[in-house]
Amino acid sequence: MFGNTFGRCFRVTTFGESHGPALGLVIDGCPAGLLLSESDIQPELDKRRPGQSELTTKRSEADRVEILSGVFEGRTTGMPIAMIVRNKDVDSSSYDAIKDLIRPGHADLGYMEKFGFRDHRGGGRSSGRETVCRVAAGAVAKKLLDMKGIRVYAHVTSIYDVIATDMGLDDVINNTYTNPVRCADLSAAKKMEEAIIAAKSEGDSLGGTVEAIALGVPAGLGAPVFGKLDADLASALMGIGAVKGVEIGLGFESARLRGSVMNDEYYLDEGVIKTRTNYAGGIVGGISSGMPVVCTVAVKPTPSVSKPQNTVNIVTKKESVIEIKGRHDPSIVPRIVPVVESMISLVLVDHMIMSGRIGPDRV
Amino acid sequence: MFGNTFGRCFRVTTFGESHGPALGLVIDGCPAGLLLSESDIQPELDKRRPGQSELTTKRSEADRVEILSGVFEGRTTGMPIAMIVRNKDVDSSSYDAIKDLIRPGHADLGYMEKFGFRDHRGGGRSSGRETVCRVAAGAVAKKLLDMKGIRVYAHVTSIYDVIATDMGLDDVINNTYTNPVRCADLSAAKKMEEAIIAAKSEGDSLGGTVEAIALGVPAGLGAPVFGKLDADLASALMGIGAVKGVEIGLGFESARLRGSVMNDEYYLDEGVIKTRTNYAGGIVGGISSGMPVVCTVAVKPTPSVSKPQNTVNIVTKKESVIEIKGRHDPSIVPRIVPVVESMISLVLVDHMIMSGRIGPDRV
Amino acid sequence: MFGNTFGRCFRVTTFGESHGPALGLVIDGCPAGLLLSESDIQPELDKRRPGQSELTTKRSEADRVEILSGVFEGRTTGMPIAMIVRNKDVDSSSYDAIKDLIRPGHADLGYMEKFGFRDHRGGGRSSGRETVCRVAAGAVAKKLLDMKGIRVYAHVTSIYDVIATDMGLDDVINNTYTNPVRCADLSAAKKMEEAIIAAKSEGDSLGGTVEAIALGVPAGLGAPVFGKLDADLASALMGIGAVKGVEIGLGFESARLRGSVMNDEYYLDEGVIKTRTNYAGGIVGGISSGMPVVCTVAVKPTPSVSKPQNTVNIVTKKESVIEIKGRHDPSIVPRIVPVVESMISLVLVDHMIMSGRIGPDRV
Amino acid sequence: MFGNTFGRCFRVTTFGESHGPALGLVIDGCPAGLLLSESDIQPELDKRRPGQSELTTKRSEADRVEILSGVFEGRTTGMPIAMIVRNKDVDSSSYDAIKDLIRPGHADLGYMEKFGFRDHRGGGRSSGRETVCRVAAGAVAKKLLDMKGIRVYAHVTSIYDVIATDMGLDDVINNTYTNPVRCADLSAAKKMEEAIIAAKSEGDSLGGTVEAIALGVPAGLGAPVFGKLDADLASALMGIGAVKGVEIGLGFESARLRGSVMNDEYYLDEGVIKTRTNYAGGIVGGISSGMPVVCTVAVKPTPSVSKPQNTVNIVTKKESVIEIKGRHDPSIVPRIVPVVESMISLVLVDHMIMSGRIGPDRV
Repeated sequence: MFGNTFGRCFRVTTFGESHGPALGLVIDGCPAGLLLSESDIQPELDKRRPGQSELTTKRSEADRVEILSGVFEGRTTGMPIAMIVRNKDVDSSSYDAIKDLIRPGHADLGYMEKFGFRDHRGGGRSSGRETVCRVAAGAVAKKLLDMKGIRVYAHVTSIYDVIATDMGLDDVINNTYTNPVRCADLSAAKKMEEAIIAAKSEGDSLGGTVEAIALGVPAGLGAPVFGKLDADLASALMGIGAVKGVEIGLGFESARLRGSVMNDEYYLDEGVIKTRTNYAGGIVGGISSGMPVVCTVAVKPTPSVSKPQNTVNIVTKKESVIEIKGRHDPSIVPRIVPVVESMISLVLVDHMIMSGRIGPDRV
Repeated sequence: MFGNTFGRCFRVTTFGESHGPALGLVIDGCPAGLLLSESDIQPELDKRRPGQSELTTKRSEADRVEILSGVFEGRTTGMPIAMIVRNKDVDSSSYDAIKDLIRPGHADLGYMEKFGFRDHRGGGRSSGRETVCRVAAGAVAKKLLDMKGIRVYAHVTSIYDVIATDMGLDDVINNTYTNPVRCADLSAAKKMEEAIIAAKSEGDSLGGTVEAIALGVPAGLGAPVFGKLDADLASALMGIGAVKGVEIGLGFESARLRGSVMNDEYYLDEGVIKTRTNYAGGIVGGISSGMPVVCTVAVKPTPSVSKPQNTVNIVTKKESVIEIKGRHDPSIVPRIVPVVESMISLVLVDHMIMSGRIGPDRV
Repeated sequence: MFGNTFGRCFRVTTFGESHGPALGLVIDGCPAGLLLSESDIQPELDKRRPGQSELTTKRSEADRVEILSGVFEGRTTGMPIAMIVRNKDVDSSSYDAIKDLIRPGHADLGYMEKFGFRDHRGGGRSSGRETVCRVAAGAVAKKLLDMKGIRVYAHVTSIYDVIATDMGLDDVINNTYTNPVRCADLSAAKKMEEAIIAAKSEGDSLGGTVEAIALGVPAGLGAPVFGKLDADLASALMGIGAVKGVEIGLGFESARLRGSVMNDEYYLDEGVIKTRTNYAGGIVGGISSGMPVVCTVAVKPTPSVSKPQNTVNIVTKKESVIEIKGRHDPSIVPRIVPVVESMISLVLVDHMIMSGRIGPDRV
Repeated sequence: MFGNTFGRCFRVTTFGESHGPALGLVIDGCPAGLLLSESDIQPELDKRRPGQSELTTKRSEADRVEILSGVFEGRTTGMPIAMIVRNKDVDSSSYDAIKDLIRPGHADLGYMEKFGFRDHRGGGRSSGRETVCRVAAGAVAKKLLDMKGIRVYAHVTSIYDVIATDMGLDDVINNTYTNPVRCADLSAAKKMEEAIIAAKSEGDSLGGTVEAIALGVPAGLGAPVFGKLDADLASALMGIGAVKGVEIGLGFESARLRGSVMNDEYYLDEGVIKTRTNYAGGIVGGISSGMPVVCTVAVKPTPSVSKPQNTVNIVTKKESVIEIKGRHDPSIVPRIVPVVESMISLVLVDHMIMSGRIGPDRV
């Protein structure tokens, strides 16, 4: 229970399995009056859609979204916005062969222990395909944030041992979606692409890191104790499949610093209180400071690899070897970029509503 | 709103300010029948109590806890358990001098933007002193977990540039609370202590890292989408003041690995499905695997340093210099150890109840 | 916000408007392993489906339900169960003429004040048509309750001035759905039907009362303070459109009694503690007693009447007269019967899960 | 679980037992900046304080409230407001004699089935004494509502067979708290008092009804589906111990009316849209209309009566006779009046915050 809804005020409930009839979501808490149509959602879905390059699964899904409720004459009504995306290119055959084998690095074992029963086809509910719903919800969140001048940008900063140069914000904004790796450093992007293709050819996969920056976040979002903005971001980001680490600002580097270095000193910039450095990543004591919010996530390599792996057959209770033949991404990192943007947008819009900066009933 | 309650089923609400009359908490959702008295809580509070070594603030608080409700004839009744700890050694004088200066690295600016008003004495609600409530709640959670064979151990793995050797579990269990740094590697502990005292003498502070291990966590806790166990842990840990990064298992190292290496392969150990490695840190796809749950947090250096720092006076709106004279820890890392244990315990007991492994009404 | 989800553990989120593309719902928190298909849902929807007699709106909707997720090989998976019902017979023409006139007895005015904007077609989100979602959710709840021997029966006890004789339980079970009024007293049913048709022919509408009985509810559901079973039932029932009063057991009659009369005395019936009377309606101090749960609701007459009524044009801000020509039920009371059963079932299944009597993860 | 917190945004958690060390509450979600001190709370507590007339229990409690947190320099800080009231006049002796006997009309049986264990002294957590916490929370809610021109008045409209004349609002405001019965009709109040004293002398108790009126409630509070204002009121009111029925507006009378009569027609009163009648009780379709909110509750007679009653000993599992000697009110109706006001105030302030009419962070 409690496992399929995200958010406190802007609440997103997702549903659907990888090989079921459809995936979908319901947003409850979107204020009335926002201009919204499928054409606002589709471009965001297209950013994570599979089958667009050699780097992604060959599953071909148009991911056409249909809005079922909550919009009237082109505007949101304040009532739940439901959307669905029908699954089209479902091929469960390769999964049937391994349905009793626990896939290393996947939720299979814990899932069986919990529910005693699972839809094994394409990972069922645990599939990365579920993120299509998060991105659809994120598209609505982004529209609301945009009205308040808040924008969220994510980009790949490393794949395996290829580390991107620290680029300026303009490059992040302009370059990220021009290459299949979603990296702002175009020369690194090329090397990352090659590394992924090489790993793929060996039946293997690669991890990486994604950084995200939110601009225009006003000071005062969050709370001092349990409703911390960074705690909510950590939950949102660690809740993306394959993410194993989350940092705010300098993150783990801050553990190796002195207070006199780590503290961002304040100054006045034409009457506005700012900090010269932003080591805190825009969040201090759980509350936004008005500086850009910066966070980084570590993404593990795709657990589905075609190389043989040792495992156990959960039915026969015998040790076995598994070779995963289903369609999957040799690196999930590039496709996580729009998901990271969406989850951060969901957290921010939730806090904007919670703090009264976006009206609960009307935009 | 929503900022002072933690948990879904085992819900902890904390209250109180650093220099107010008392701090306290209410636990709602603790099943009936658990043996409980103040003598179960006090030893845990003593682990984080200030004034025990040169490494901590000189504020002297006995932190005596009083249970006000929910216990009858030595057992919990299923009704809310309220506890309070009166503040005794309150000295607000040093704070009055700087009440209009925004302390770098503290929540002051965001707090003022949010509430327009704050109890500035000793950090008010944002004080680390609030964690006394989390540790009291954690003590109850630990008792419940103990009945199910689950134990949580945290220990300091680095302070600034002093990195502890990777010790075995026995050393973690036996050594951690024998030294003021809370480090299992006793020789590193000595160096860490010296480093902290040196920083203190310079009016500075140090960060570090804390690792935690939960043993006995059954497979099947968590959920595949938004109720992931690791997402909840990330929220709980990032929600501790001064924490800037959270890792599960290998964390950021996993971003630099290949899938064939990162995946923990399964085997049978006398009929039980286990993995030989535990790079995942006991959580795969958001659900516990039955292996030990392992996580690491990055703790920034205490933001209160006595060295002069540039800042702004929020009332006069003029730039200024601040020197913080209040009593504070030169490194918060050692005192975070019992807080980390408590927050992890709260997450685990919540999931044990959510999954029906601990009865909702009775132990 | 918070307005479209019902339940704590068994959580139902509904969406959709009367004249939009579809209505639907998501159930989160249904344990895995329950046999479920559309054929379990459809018969319940048919009980409330319009167009089945002269007593209901002429809108003709087959109300075909499609399950989109959460079911695999005929069993629930523990994941969200989404269902949709497409709207077919949409005719908004009669609503366009009165879209700026506030309909007396409807939510129009408050809705406009809240959202500033509304889908006026057929009442939009405020339409009784939304209850198709509650009944679909109720069908799942009923299946779960049935496994534990709990059954819920509702029936009409009065329409306007026609009051049914107090029938035995067998008549309630056998007769209710054999007549269009949903009354267990067949001779009263005839008179009720005539009264409704007479009112309809005058362009008017009638109110009435519905009683519900839940059998097999175990003692111990509910909580002593805010999670009272009767408080949850009151919320569920008052939350049905047109309901203006809720009673548990003797309800308002209890206000005119002495304690020595009202108290249900206990005795032993073959070792089981029971009460001879059940004036309390099976709930004492907020917790079920093991006796049948009995409640009654007052349903106001359908506010849509074709008789002319004084009102105000919200756009021109001028007084006006409205005559409502849309298709509507001359008495909503009969069609509320399955909705009452559904809402009670949702409350009971929620409490069965909350108390651990139905497993949170698996049936 | 979930049983001790009320409200969504303005959340009140209460704790404490009748004969424990203290009762108390935590309010989370009160905006910062509200002037607040114990002197705002105490007068409200005094309205429900026992021992003030022959009509109430002889237990003598000063009910002195202490604020422990969330207030600084006389203003709320936005952080949790905790308050406690120590129990003073505890006498558990009369309860020890009957601790194994299930008291008719009390929660005892269900409580034991649920928790297997209970604090039997004075009803423990199920005691009406818990309402001291609701009234304390209500006092804060009332202060917030008062700033927006909203006032809530409750008064006794009947005791047993004595029914008050329908008085004007002025009499309700001026007369209610001038007599121990809390009745606006002073001549009926006299008769009610006599009836209660007569019942008491016979070892019996009486029920009654309480009406409440909320003035100044703006149109637009509530929601069309599950967050209905009347559903929330019903939950709040049915959640008061001894309440067995709740009506909004005409309530059960509406079931005996025609739509053309029940509908409140709209007109313009100096540009403001109003209704001439207010049969709906200020709530239509779940949303406030701007007219006064009116509701009525049925209160059963106090279940504690000293007359002998048949019951069962839950330990020996034998039938027995019980005579209740503890101190209790011969009619709980008068003392419920401030509790009704408080619960309605809590619901209204919650909806005012939810709709953005009261700021979430600051007044």
